[in-house]
Amino acid sequence: MSHSELETLIHLMAKLPGLGPRSARRVVLHLLKQKDALMRPLAQSLLQTADNVVNCEICGNLDVASPCHICTENKRDTKTLCVVENVADLWAMERGSIYRGLYHVLGGVLSAMDGVSPKDLNIDKLANRVANDDISEVIIATNATVDGQTTAHYITERLAEYGVEITRLAHGIPIGGELDYLDEGTLSAALKSRK
Amino acid sequence: MSHSELETLIHLMAKLPGLGPRSARRVVLHLLKQKDALMRPLAQSLLQTADNVVNCEICGNLDVASPCHICTENKRDTKTLCVVENVADLWAMERGSIYRGLYHVLGGVLSAMDGVSPKDLNIDKLANRVANDDISEVIIATNATVDGQTTAHYITERLAEYGVEITRLAHGIPIGGELDYLDEGTLSAALKSRK
Repeated sequence: MSHSELETLIHLMAKLPGLGPRSARRVVLHLLKQKDALMRPLAQSLLQTADNVVNCEICGNLDVASPCHICTENKRDTKTLCVVENVADLWAMERGSIYRGLYHVLGGVLSAMDGVSPKDLNIDKLANRVANDDISEVIIATNATVDGQTTAHYITERLAEYGVEITRLAHGIPIGGELDYLDEGTLSAALKSRK
Repeated sequence: MSHSELETLIHLMAKLPGLGPRSARRVVLHLLKQKDALMRPLAQSLLQTADNVVNCEICGNLDVASPCHICTENKRDTKTLCVVENVADLWAMERGSIYRGLYHVLGGVLSAMDGVSPKDLNIDKLANRVANDDISEVIIATNATVDGQTTAHYITERLAEYGVEITRLAHGIPIGGELDYLDEGTLSAALKSRK
């Protein structure tokens, strides 16, 4: 290892998810070979994004403006809300271009183990939106994990008083999936929901 | 995906070795959660390193000064040169703290396939150092690949005229390695070099 400046950079890089000290060194050496093509643009882009990107005050999405471009887009179906755990899930839904409604980002899931209670999540704002906006359907798209399911149940109960339709993403066999490799839980869910 | 600024950052991140579009998105979301603790320091460190880190004019190492801190360190054995393919290999040698001589970074290996010829590497400077400095031993520490071995052979011939001692790293069984999992080439090398 050479000088402290390089070590600082490697140390910071190693904090990124999926990178360790070894891969951080590789990344830094790669960057130093392309100072003008990659290293400086990356640094500028990091600073610019850190300065400009904010959480949307309505849905919690990350964007350069608040309300975000999804909340302000004209062509969206404003009567449907899709509730997701985090921004990554929102992006995953958007990639498919199959959903044209609005979103609500919870910012996590309820978890007794990690001490996450309803007040730590963006749930009050969700109840407000359902109560005050003209929403006809709430699609709960939390992950199919124990915590995700618990959160979905909690939200369903919480929103019951508003008389809005509450739906969940279907469970079943992934497209291209082979029965032989699926767990019993998924198979049983797919069988129960057969059409 | 939201706005172009975020997309630019994800696009740049995805160019780093070991990261793809999916992990780049994960890294960017992680950074946005820690703007002041990680994102801005990382950007500053990238800019600072890009501005200050240069290749050492003597050995080719990366450092904030040229000559680098290894070439200028007093306690080093200046009669021994270790020839490595790249800076990552130099760092690997330094991590062990077992070698106390100087280095020479080739910047690659000879490769007919990739069209790398001797003039593309830092070999002339190596010959100059051996000819003009008081060097008694050159340790060739290129990788144990075909191209690495070819480069080692070339350097050995090139330096023959200077009457300097030329050695190579030993081949053999890695510490902790099991015979059962080793290839025949390594086993045969270990057997030949038995002591």
